Amino acid sequence: MLRLASTTDPKWAPRVLGEIDELLVDHAHCEKKAAGMAINLLFRYPRQTFLMRPLSRLAREELSHFEEVLGVIAERSLRFFAQKPAPYAGRLREGTRSHEPARLLDTLLCGALIEARSCERFERLSEAVEDEGLRHFYNGLLAAEARHHAVYLDLARELVGEDELEERLASLAAHEAQVLASSPELPRIHGA
Amino acid sequence: MLRLASTTDPKWAPRVLGEIDELLVDHAHCEKKAAGMAINLLFRYPRQTFLMRPLSRLAREELSHFEEVLGVIAERSLRFFAQKPAPYAGRLREGTRSHEPARLLDTLLCGALIEARSCERFERLSEAVEDEGLRHFYNGLLAAEARHHAVYLDLARELVGEDELEERLASLAAHEAQVLASSPELPRIHGA
Repeated sequence: MLRLASTTDPKWAPRVLGEIDELLVDHAHCEKKAAGMAINLLFRYPRQTFLMRPLSRLAREELSHFEEVLGVIAERSLRFFAQKPAPYAGRLREGTRSHEPARLLDTLLCGALIEARSCERFERLSEAVEDEGLRHFYNGLLAAEARHHAVYLDLARELVGEDELEERLASLAAHEAQVLASSPELPRIHGA
Repeated sequence: MLRLASTTDPKWAPRVLGEIDELLVDHAHCEKKAAGMAINLLFRYPRQTFLMRPLSRLAREELSHFEEVLGVIAERSLRFFAQKPAPYAGRLREGTRSHEPARLLDTLLCGALIEARSCERFERLSEAVEDEGLRHFYNGLLAAEARHHAVYLDLARELVGEDELEERLASLAAHEAQVLASSPELPRIHGA
């Protein structure tokens, strides 16, 4: 699905839905981090003007999802709190090269993979969740994540030809699958 | 105006409008930095839940202004480019205290002052500019900046009583006026 190198175990969704309160808080942090990642790229690459508008729009959408998740948390009378983050994004980044323009290419491809994994995980959650409101909520986010996946891939295509892109994407997808498989079993969108 | 401790010289707007191309690029960077500042607060204070929704919404609006300015730059067949930033925001921050919760209070008040100064400067520009499209553009941004000023003040009110807020705001406003007056005379929204 969406170029991922692994498929989430069907037991994952029922397990993490058993700790829905913590999962929702993690989800809010994920949306905030996704916005932060896009905005960091705007600051890190002011000369790469092709990034500006697509990533600004993407960041706005992530922020509006952040607010949406905060709304779900408030409706359920839960509190948003600081949380030990999953090691996923940090370990994923260890697979990116440090010289330019490879660093930018790899960062965009990691962005595409994170969005793809979120999309896959929201699909699993929407299939497994009993609460109709939450099913609707996860379903609504699916399409946005798939679109964001395509935004990151299209930006990566501005940098390299299709062959190099496919090769690098496959290699980072394998790394992503490994990072996820070795993550702690916590109620996290990007946990094992 | 909006609690500022100084008024911009009427000669400022005609002077910087003489270098409109560079002013527009600076303006785009300012909107991006305003979004970045709000998002930094979301990451720095995950426990201060009252900040989350208002600052996320504010960041979204700044990003949409960023895209709007990029649109004006593109319409005029200019290029967005990396630019030496005005020292304003960095020097303003030197006036904030480093211990909590004073640091958060001061940062919010600096946010309020930056929005107030932007509001004042856009008003000067809208009065002085001859191009009707740009006048409309600057006028449109005025109201948003005034609203953002109020958002930051309202958040600061969650931390301290009105007396302490007024005292600290007056002191930071004096600092802001001094920083601005000693800034280089460059075509910048927050320059001398």
